[in-house]
Amino acid sequence: MANKRRTVSIVAAVMCSLVPATMNAHATDPLPSWNDGKAKQSIVEFVQKVTSPDSPDFVPPAERIATFDNDGTLWSEQPMYFQAFFVFDRIRALEPQHPEWKTQEPFASVLKGDMKSALAGGEHSLAQMVMATHAGITNEEFEKTVTAWITTAKHPKTGRLYTEMVFQPMLEVLTYLRANGFRTYIVSGGGIEFMRPWCERVYGIPPEQVVGSSIKTKYELRDGKPVLIRLPELNFIDDKEGKPVGIQQHIGRRPIMAFGNSDGDFQMLEWTTAGTGARFGLIVHHTDSVREFAYDRDSSVGRLAKGLDEANGRGWTVVDMQNDWTQIYP
Amino acid sequence: MANKRRTVSIVAAVMCSLVPATMNAHATDPLPSWNDGKAKQSIVEFVQKVTSPDSPDFVPPAERIATFDNDGTLWSEQPMYFQAFFVFDRIRALEPQHPEWKTQEPFASVLKGDMKSALAGGEHSLAQMVMATHAGITNEEFEKTVTAWITTAKHPKTGRLYTEMVFQPMLEVLTYLRANGFRTYIVSGGGIEFMRPWCERVYGIPPEQVVGSSIKTKYELRDGKPVLIRLPELNFIDDKEGKPVGIQQHIGRRPIMAFGNSDGDFQMLEWTTAGTGARFGLIVHHTDSVREFAYDRDSSVGRLAKGLDEANGRGWTVVDMQNDWTQIYP
Repeated sequence: MANKRRTVSIVAAVMCSLVPATMNAHATDPLPSWNDGKAKQSIVEFVQKVTSPDSPDFVPPAERIATFDNDGTLWSEQPMYFQAFFVFDRIRALEPQHPEWKTQEPFASVLKGDMKSALAGGEHSLAQMVMATHAGITNEEFEKTVTAWITTAKHPKTGRLYTEMVFQPMLEVLTYLRANGFRTYIVSGGGIEFMRPWCERVYGIPPEQVVGSSIKTKYELRDGKPVLIRLPELNFIDDKEGKPVGIQQHIGRRPIMAFGNSDGDFQMLEWTTAGTGARFGLIVHHTDSVREFAYDRDSSVGRLAKGLDEANGRGWTVVDMQNDWTQIYP
Repeated sequence: MANKRRTVSIVAAVMCSLVPATMNAHATDPLPSWNDGKAKQSIVEFVQKVTSPDSPDFVPPAERIATFDNDGTLWSEQPMYFQAFFVFDRIRALEPQHPEWKTQEPFASVLKGDMKSALAGGEHSLAQMVMATHAGITNEEFEKTVTAWITTAKHPKTGRLYTEMVFQPMLEVLTYLRANGFRTYIVSGGGIEFMRPWCERVYGIPPEQVVGSSIKTKYELRDGKPVLIRLPELNFIDDKEGKPVGIQQHIGRRPIMAFGNSDGDFQMLEWTTAGTGARFGLIVHHTDSVREFAYDRDSSVGRLAKGLDEANGRGWTVVDMQNDWTQIYP
């Protein structure tokens, strides 16, 4: 009898490890880095109402799509987008192959360490730098370059790896949603192939669930071996009005939850929350100058004005980082 | 004691329903519509070697991606692509709003029922007809139109709904792969938004796992309501060299299995099977003039020549529909 009881409990333990995490979701606080308050409550209440089978707002798992902006929503974005640091580091690394850069702007300014002048040329200069550092190589070569950089490069202010500047409270939201049958997507203005090499490890988001800006690629044979070559030609800008377009192109369904932090995410939240049935929009407001950065209306990176003005009227949650989050980085 | 045993067995039964299907995959024949032979054997052996944890060819579930062409691989494509029937039906339906079509080619020929003349203008004519029937409306309107058509329109030769002309043996492959931890994708030259409304119901493939050709879309507000408008402008052709590009764009990983039937799938199979580790390519050869259609080198639709010449040397499986499949349609 004792033996039998032991066998049964071992079997039960093994079987329980196969039970979807949803069933245990309410056992402990799924969002421990969130202070109790309206923001946290709005997330938990929404998830409960769309996942409870007897709720009038129940949403079948196939339609549980949540989209997340990356820069400023899942990780920091100050004093400039982290991908811009990558671009500058690549320009320095490629300098020996480009002697002409010594006198050619915007490269000359980057090499002198004058980032402000490098960026003064606006979008045209930026595009030049992106193409010079992101194109002309195969997809695999680019992936290796990104992986080498992301695992070693450090943020100039915090001295942390960039992947250590992800937001712990948002990691908890990602895990919580997936445990409740959601598919979590990144929908970012950043480069799709810049994010894919590390998003699975850092966020648990696989390459096929990353939507981003892209340059064109071309399939060809090199020495009989097929490769995808990255071309210096823009393919798609996944920002502002582009976000709903990118969502439809990649996902083919309208999300029921969307998370952003800047006016570049406005249309994604608008599109998401205009759908029928229960919908959820959230804006991360950067209010913590001590633990992170404080900025909104007047920032050239991650400007947030329209979203702040309209969030309340549209029923979107606004996260006050300083007060809502007990912890910023993991 | 008896009661206890009963409770335990009920618990065990409930728990067993949570056990992944993989564990039961070998209990019965997963491919009953396939005759025993080299083709069937190659599929089963490949799946076993990449899913057995102690196999040197083991592939973790995250990397188990299988891509399927649609026209001629998952459903029939003769005497012309089914989407062309949709285009012609739409032209007839839209005739009252376009009196000018009575005298304007290629529309005039379609309205007279002369498909050969309608298609004589080649790609330019086809593009004109696609744009006239696929653009100028919202995504949601287009989805409704496709759904209404696919659930009622019938094939001129078989009298079946088009979705009844899918290949039963391939449905079994899709189910078998998913039961073994694969994610199954469609990668088709057909329109992405033409396939998405019915692929989940018919193939069990959700919208986010459909890759296809597309026109551009634009996000805008109409009477304050956000919509995606379909524009008469080509975005991407997911055929030939475009298939590996579309795969990288949408999936971001190289598949380990690819299934096609025409030379339009050649590069997808080439790209898939050139990767490191165990790889699998399969070509459906249409050899059954009685139960389906027999065609290859000389067909204007689904031409297969290079694939047939090179399959053997590249280690790709070639399915002989007449001999390998006991059943064609469900």
